Amino acid sequence: MNASHVLWTDVAPRDGLQSIKDHVSTEAKVRLLRGLLGAGAPRVEATAFVSPQWVPQLADAAEVLSSVREHVSRLRVLIPNHRGLERALEHGMRNVLVTLGATDSFNRRNVNRSVAESLEELTRIVATARAAGCTVDVALSVSFGCPYEGRVEPQRVADLCERIAGAGVDEVGVADTIGVATPAAVASLLRLVAERVPLEQLSLHVHDTRGLGVANVVAAFAAGVRRFDGSVGGVGGCPFAPRSTGNVCSEDALQALMSLGATVDADLDALCRVSEQLERDLGRALPGRLYRAGVWHGVPVATAEASVG
Amino acid sequence: MNASHVLWTDVAPRDGLQSIKDHVSTEAKVRLLRGLLGAGAPRVEATAFVSPQWVPQLADAAEVLSSVREHVSRLRVLIPNHRGLERALEHGMRNVLVTLGATDSFNRRNVNRSVAESLEELTRIVATARAAGCTVDVALSVSFGCPYEGRVEPQRVADLCERIAGAGVDEVGVADTIGVATPAAVASLLRLVAERVPLEQLSLHVHDTRGLGVANVVAAFAAGVRRFDGSVGGVGGCPFAPRSTGNVCSEDALQALMSLGATVDADLDALCRVSEQLERDLGRALPGRLYRAGVWHGVPVATAEASVG
Repeated sequence: MNASHVLWTDVAPRDGLQSIKDHVSTEAKVRLLRGLLGAGAPRVEATAFVSPQWVPQLADAAEVLSSVREHVSRLRVLIPNHRGLERALEHGMRNVLVTLGATDSFNRRNVNRSVAESLEELTRIVATARAAGCTVDVALSVSFGCPYEGRVEPQRVADLCERIAGAGVDEVGVADTIGVATPAAVASLLRLVAERVPLEQLSLHVHDTRGLGVANVVAAFAAGVRRFDGSVGGVGGCPFAPRSTGNVCSEDALQALMSLGATVDADLDALCRVSEQLERDLGRALPGRLYRAGVWHGVPVATAEASVG
Repeated sequence: MNASHVLWTDVAPRDGLQSIKDHVSTEAKVRLLRGLLGAGAPRVEATAFVSPQWVPQLADAAEVLSSVREHVSRLRVLIPNHRGLERALEHGMRNVLVTLGATDSFNRRNVNRSVAESLEELTRIVATARAAGCTVDVALSVSFGCPYEGRVEPQRVADLCERIAGAGVDEVGVADTIGVATPAAVASLLRLVAERVPLEQLSLHVHDTRGLGVANVVAAFAAGVRRFDGSVGGVGGCPFAPRSTGNVCSEDALQALMSLGATVDADLDALCRVSEQLERDLGRALPGRLYRAGVWHGVPVATAEASVG
């Protein structure tokens, strides 16, 4: 693997769809997953083994996974706890994601535990997973800011990342859950975290809530990070609520990284077609831009109208 | 002025509105202009003196300008030719923008002249303007790619920028008219142009067509550029055509620049309120993100719901 190769995990099927209130059919989810895998996405966060009461949209996790079982080496599923891991292992999963809040307030709201309690359970999760040949990734939610506590001390995030890495996980992700990161904050936080955790293990997960998603990914790439999460078409938040926004758009961000010399596994044109299909399946435009305009290949495009400026 | 101060020209009233097919009332335009000036925008591209047959949306240029005459030192108007300059001077304008295409195909479609002919007229425009105490800025359209010719040779852009600067203009803008620039292309083109034109004179004008607007602004800032165009709310293209997109959103991009140490004149919260008003006036959501989510001030926000990832 060359030093500029990016491992991009498309989280559209999980983080992208989970907060959509209208039911998305299992058929559409499977189409999305197969589309992403067919486009060359190196890893796809396929679903979550969480309580259907908690996230009704992902209640069909087992059925969704069974339809793409042959691609298990490129799938990741979110689990909230040890019980979720057991279900993931029952379904043959080989890579799981655990989220852990950077603040107690957020973590309690999310999983009803203190951060310390979650770290303890993480140790148990890693032990069970390893014994079963399954890798564990962790996303540290609200690393750049918390809705309940406001600013989060970067030193606290760095400490937590070190403890998470020390628990034996594969990937340590700093997650901008509420979309408040800036390019400067990304650069400085990642520099701090990289003193504790090898850069190769670090990942960035950002939302485009305030329009800085792609710029934040670029800042992290410049800081040496090579693992990212994003969602095809930028799907996420609730597309039926105009003020909510989703994960950074995979194809928009990959386009920026490729311009900077990154090599990637997925094909941009193919990802755009996945977004087009998802737009049809959800019945409305997604936040992403590239799939609407089309990849620029440097050749004349007949459809453009003359315009000024 | 400190070395990190940014001169941000808000072009929403001109570039942002000009391609909207539905009529926008003069009252709404004046509200937008006054909002921007009240928010502290250091310069606003207020309208254009172009043929109403060509851009019907801006047929009320004279009326719009008369309502903000007291702010003339912060206004810029677009003119297509010497006749436009005369009209601008009749209305007391002290700063005009001329656009010039980087390719003959684009320039002919836009102003029915070769680039060489436009450069000749530019010399006449600058002479007349200077004699009247008016400064001239130039935007070099399709500097990153042309819809009719495809890729544009960076060396050609640098040559043209040098000739434009040599004509005695104040500001030389490289414009990504069709939204095909990438952070890498911005950095390399600006490095090339800066060998010919002082950085202080250079400006970047980008559209968010492919989602890279903010990242491109950040790349230009890192390259030393301190002048930018953008539109409040990211208005532009046709908001009633889902596949078109506008100028980079002023408040989204300014937020990124401020995180990197830039000082700016406008107030972000106030700009967000201008976008909110414009959304109401246009009757639909704008492409910008920040005005929907609100500026993050690092304090708890009660409205957030717990979410994973």
